[in-house]
Amino acid sequence: NQTFELDSNPHTRLNILTGEWVLVSPHRTKRPWQGKIEDVTPDNRPEYDPKCYLCPGNGRADGDSNPEYTESFVFNNDFAALLEDTPAGNMNEDDLLVANNQRGLCRVISFSPKHNLTLPEMSVEAITAVVNVWQNEFNSLAENDWIKYIQIFENKGEIMGCSNPHPHGQIWSQSDIPLEIAKETERQKTYYAIHRRSLLGDYLKLEQKKKERIIFENDHFAVLVPFWAVWPYETMIISKRHVNSIKLFTKAEKKSLAEAIKLLTTKYDNLFETSFPYSAGMHQAPVNNGYYPEWHWHMHFYPPLLRSASVKKFMVGYEMLANPQRDITPEFAANRLKEMSAIHYKTNKT
Amino acid sequence: NQTFELDSNPHTRLNILTGEWVLVSPHRTKRPWQGKIEDVTPDNRPEYDPKCYLCPGNGRADGDSNPEYTESFVFNNDFAALLEDTPAGNMNEDDLLVANNQRGLCRVISFSPKHNLTLPEMSVEAITAVVNVWQNEFNSLAENDWIKYIQIFENKGEIMGCSNPHPHGQIWSQSDIPLEIAKETERQKTYYAIHRRSLLGDYLKLEQKKKERIIFENDHFAVLVPFWAVWPYETMIISKRHVNSIKLFTKAEKKSLAEAIKLLTTKYDNLFETSFPYSAGMHQAPVNNGYYPEWHWHMHFYPPLLRSASVKKFMVGYEMLANPQRDITPEFAANRLKEMSAIHYKTNKT
Ligand SMILES: O=P(O)(O)O[C@H]1O[C@H](CO)[C@@H](O)[C@H](O)[C@H]1O
Ligand SMILES: O=P(O)(O)O[C@H]1O[C@H](CO)[C@@H](O)[C@H](O)[C@H]1O
Repeated sequence: NQTFELDSNPHTRLNILTGEWVLVSPHRTKRPWQGKIEDVTPDNRPEYDPKCYLCPGNGRADGDSNPEYTESFVFNNDFAALLEDTPAGNMNEDDLLVANNQRGLCRVISFSPKHNLTLPEMSVEAITAVVNVWQNEFNSLAENDWIKYIQIFENKGEIMGCSNPHPHGQIWSQSDIPLEIAKETERQKTYYAIHRRSLLGDYLKLEQKKKERIIFENDHFAVLVPFWAVWPYETMIISKRHVNSIKLFTKAEKKSLAEAIKLLTTKYDNLFETSFPYSAGMHQAPVNNGYYPEWHWHMHFYPPLLRSASVKKFMVGYEMLANPQRDITPEFAANRLKEMSAIHYKTNKT
Repeated sequence: NQTFELDSNPHTRLNILTGEWVLVSPHRTKRPWQGKIEDVTPDNRPEYDPKCYLCPGNGRADGDSNPEYTESFVFNNDFAALLEDTPAGNMNEDDLLVANNQRGLCRVISFSPKHNLTLPEMSVEAITAVVNVWQNEFNSLAENDWIKYIQIFENKGEIMGCSNPHPHGQIWSQSDIPLEIAKETERQKTYYAIHRRSLLGDYLKLEQKKKERIIFENDHFAVLVPFWAVWPYETMIISKRHVNSIKLFTKAEKKSLAEAIKLLTTKYDNLFETSFPYSAGMHQAPVNNGYYPEWHWHMHFYPPLLRSASVKKFMVGYEMLANPQRDITPEFAANRLKEMSAIHYKTNKT
């Protein structure tokens, strides 16, 4: 008659932000790996690449040339998935074939003029400049009253479909509210209606008491592996103040966010001594669509690596058809990241 | 003043089985690809590999040896994500940290004694034997009254996390109903309550009228690219008869299903002249949990390739954080697959 233990028995955990469950199989890392070994992209890029469409001064697909910029640089995506001038329209046949037009604006943000940097290798000042651009872009995109949601994100690494290694992120903004935001809105709204407090605020307080999944905190942000993390080393940055978008961040908060991003991504790189791939992005309230007092700003990091720089977690058959599944526990992942140094592993190498 | 066109304007489409939307960007395939080029696994495996744990006669991790089997062969997964003897238990702190134990049984099915085959290269008779095993396993797993859902699936190809190239599939069965099945149950139930007909049955009739997305049909099954497909060449096999699980398939239907699988996977291989990777699996009603008259058996194929054998679609930043997104239209994909020969491209090569 054993007792049920989260660190050794298969179980499901509830994602309080989406209402969905993840299957956790803590005992499963023992299986042998005969599968795919990813190529590790060599980390020897030049500071300037004449063929890169993001480097200062170079030409882009639309014929424009980039300015000789010295901090970050923003432009409209030359191959945008969403377009501003999409005509209005929709279709509905018997509720079986249903489609709506979608308008949007997509931007690209180069984080640095230097082709060979990544966020953890940039200074807090330079990352703060990126945070400022995010805030400015958010504010200016929100001036278009037809835009309802603004997704700020970064795909880092070839393994995450990043088609150019120059440090950069994207913003896709659109006329409808996308799926993940609709789910998180509903859950936060329901909690707020009952408790008159932020769901993530209460969750963070509980995690601060438990001390099992928090990796670190600074003045304005906490960084943790959520109890319901799906990806092996998934993390979340939560603002300590309950604000519903980046628009409301003060100067001090923006610097604090830059510090949190630098420390988290440094720990990530140190974990497998590799430029750690991930997709990361902010979740925040929709815009131009009423009030969202329940919404609590946060940022998700979804990194694919599981065992080493070259073995990732595959979200495939069972996961696509049935349910997300993970092997190591979130607590194990949080401990590993907690142990990692705040000094980037490349610092003392030549 | 243009008019809105599904084949050229960005839009969203409703997945009637889940209630979720997919963003379609038909104009977007023009962007240049500077990103990851996948390794194509060389297709020169021997018929027997002494190191493969699935080949007849070879040893497995648990110490057992495989019999000298001549058709398909089933055994319990030696590294199962779910275990039968998980103790009962759960946790709930303030509705913020919520977990439940999960019991399950995981099986592996070798499709063939030959290490170097894949489904499209097997005979209809040999695939029918696999369908028989699926039906038998479904029936025998369902005899455990604590099992509520049985997921039959295949991960094919290294790119889909398949850790052994020997042709094989898996079955994960478990004590709760997984996420995707819960979504599809709800949508089918709602439609059935209103119309007293199967949602997928009505959908199939409409597609048969439209002729835009059906790739082919045989006596008992239709194969199509669903209107709401997410993956570039995603397809679905739908049974013409409204049955809620594989348990009810007749001998004629099982042979017909084998024929449909052979033809679909042959067309897939011919598309980029490569052993086409995918995750595929059946969706059917839960078991030991009351009646599910609304459920309509179907099988999803989720293949990752987009442009060629070595360039896949990445479901990353925007897709993970906001909404699934696709570039080519489902109609374009259906036409391409329709054009493909029913003769496997390797047939005339030596
Ligand atoms: O069971 P396998 O083939 O070792 O593993 C593969 O399929 C499983 C079920 O979809 C996934 O959880 C694994 O990530 C994947 O590598
Ligand atoms: O925009 P990129 O970097 O060319 O493309 C990348 O990010 C997009 C947004 O997540 C994805 O849709 C693409 O599949 C991926 O390759």
